[in-house]
Amino acid sequence: MTTPNTHRFLIVADGQFGPLTSKTANSCLRYFPERIVAVLDRREAGKTVEAVLGFGGNIPVVGDFAEGLALGATAVLIGIAPAGGQLPPEWRGWLKTAIEQRLEIWSGLHTFIGDDPEFGPLARARHVRILDARKPPADLPIADGRAADVDAYVLLAVGSDCNVGKMTAMLELRRALVARGKTTSFVATGQTGIFIEGWGIAVDAVVADFIAGAAERLVLQGAEGHDIVLVEGQGSLIHPGYSGVTLGLLHGSCPDALILCHQATREYIGDYHGREPWVKIPPYRELIDIYERAMAPVRPTRTIGVCLNTYDMSDRDARGAIARAAEETGLPATDPVRYDPEPLVAAVLNAARQGKHR
Amino acid sequence: MTTPNTHRFLIVADGQFGPLTSKTANSCLRYFPERIVAVLDRREAGKTVEAVLGFGGNIPVVGDFAEGLALGATAVLIGIAPAGGQLPPEWRGWLKTAIEQRLEIWSGLHTFIGDDPEFGPLARARHVRILDARKPPADLPIADGRAADVDAYVLLAVGSDCNVGKMTAMLELRRALVARGKTTSFVATGQTGIFIEGWGIAVDAVVADFIAGAAERLVLQGAEGHDIVLVEGQGSLIHPGYSGVTLGLLHGSCPDALILCHQATREYIGDYHGREPWVKIPPYRELIDIYERAMAPVRPTRTIGVCLNTYDMSDRDARGAIARAAEETGLPATDPVRYDPEPLVAAVLNAARQGKHR
Repeated sequence: MTTPNTHRFLIVADGQFGPLTSKTANSCLRYFPERIVAVLDRREAGKTVEAVLGFGGNIPVVGDFAEGLALGATAVLIGIAPAGGQLPPEWRGWLKTAIEQRLEIWSGLHTFIGDDPEFGPLARARHVRILDARKPPADLPIADGRAADVDAYVLLAVGSDCNVGKMTAMLELRRALVARGKTTSFVATGQTGIFIEGWGIAVDAVVADFIAGAAERLVLQGAEGHDIVLVEGQGSLIHPGYSGVTLGLLHGSCPDALILCHQATREYIGDYHGREPWVKIPPYRELIDIYERAMAPVRPTRTIGVCLNTYDMSDRDARGAIARAAEETGLPATDPVRYDPEPLVAAVLNAARQGKHR
Repeated sequence: MTTPNTHRFLIVADGQFGPLTSKTANSCLRYFPERIVAVLDRREAGKTVEAVLGFGGNIPVVGDFAEGLALGATAVLIGIAPAGGQLPPEWRGWLKTAIEQRLEIWSGLHTFIGDDPEFGPLARARHVRILDARKPPADLPIADGRAADVDAYVLLAVGSDCNVGKMTAMLELRRALVARGKTTSFVATGQTGIFIEGWGIAVDAVVADFIAGAAERLVLQGAEGHDIVLVEGQGSLIHPGYSGVTLGLLHGSCPDALILCHQATREYIGDYHGREPWVKIPPYRELIDIYERAMAPVRPTRTIGVCLNTYDMSDRDARGAIARAAEETGLPATDPVRYDPEPLVAAVLNAARQGKHR
């Protein structure tokens, strides 16, 4: 279940590949371009991904499914939601061909490919896995605190808002910790993370009673054979739309420590600019307090570092923001994508050495 | 949608009617016995509900479906989950008869009666409503703060734990406020509340991303034509299994004020005695702080009263517990089922008179 994802993907984005129209495809191209052999879009065929999106380099856009497969794909990833919600007949033909050739199908659609009356039985007959990233397991438990019992040291990324870099922070940390010889797992809790790892649960897609139970199960799985578990965060405790997911993830995963993630230029929760800005993001110390207090009655935890996303700032402003975050919190801070992740890596190693809270 | 529930029910609990085996039926019999004409259980036929459960008075248990209907039922309520999950053939016959006679079917099953290939089309053809209490609406929004814009004064029951009397507190308050001439709605967020009112959403059964959106929609509906909206609470912010539901309900409903509910003898969260007690319930002031702080970044709210459940205490101990709660919090406190609800009623009227937080 937790074996690394080593597939090479043909991404289907037929008729919709573009900067604003193929969000899932674009996330994959941003986070694991080295594993993508081609994008299928008959409209943009012949171009490169870079020419269409402005990033992605020379990955080709092809107009023919067989041509894409021939580039060495071992799995087909559905990178857009088809217009109208139904799989078009051509797509059905492509998916059938793929399964018959024993390629895995990965999908983030709300309609599950594995439940399709044609593809489900065909895949079972051919022993081909269909990964429906948004499909919750059928037998999730109500969380009962078992996540606190694992021997691994568990960290959760928490944030000021959605989309501030929680997943990226944990992936960068994993890379650095593995380089230091620490067996470290990344626990995916959202669709893109699941595509990166090949396993996980989209915790925002489970029935509300089972958010914490899903987090608990993920931590138990991620802890097997690993010293350190890095749990991808979701939402924010101050995001009114998604805060329930965030609290369930917090209580279910029982993290030994938290890493606070923030986009340094963001002042308000980003989803609420429709009428006027709504929820103002409080200062770092207050945010840390909100998370630690939410956890305190269940199992104490502490914040050990701040991870900033400074992609939209000048070098000088970014360094200033990092220095301010470190000063205001008294914690190590960095932008691990742009600068040296070392301050956070050292904080994790140090916390793990001190051992779990028992 | 918010018209009062005036049905008279035949409850189906065939083969399982008993103190420990028919939880949904028993809740209905406890909360609205005056609307129940009979319980159907061929095994216990001929007895009274009181003889089987120890409460419920002379409501008869019948062994024949037609006999039950003949007692004046206008709706059939499924009060147990059938063994094995599938509707037994006899049940299918009963439900078909009921729909053909234009009786509504009310169900809290996880398998939705309205989606049944026989009953769904039949009910539509006969213009008969099927109320699947656990089925979330298909088009729930992501919460965006509109609940704060209603003119009605909105109160939410919050609690130390599940099952401490949050629903009962709000029902008692509604009764007292209506008696004072205040147009007051009770907003049901769980199965029993939905059965009592005939509308609502089981917020723990929605997909996690939509908890707050469901709460928002309920408040908008409950506010129509009402001065005061009393929202049924769910779970607790310190219950690790269900805290996500509680926070989503809090942020989505944007309550002007909170009523804190607690069972006075309870020291630990009740669902976690399997290995050893886990989460200790903190003192009142700390609980109030946890709720008010969770809401503060989104929209400030305040706690205006404490509602105690003292059913398992002597009169002397109960009065002592109420006095202590009032002293520790500086707020009005009572057990509105056992004693005069007046302190809480006055607190609500007073808070509503001061007006909404804008």
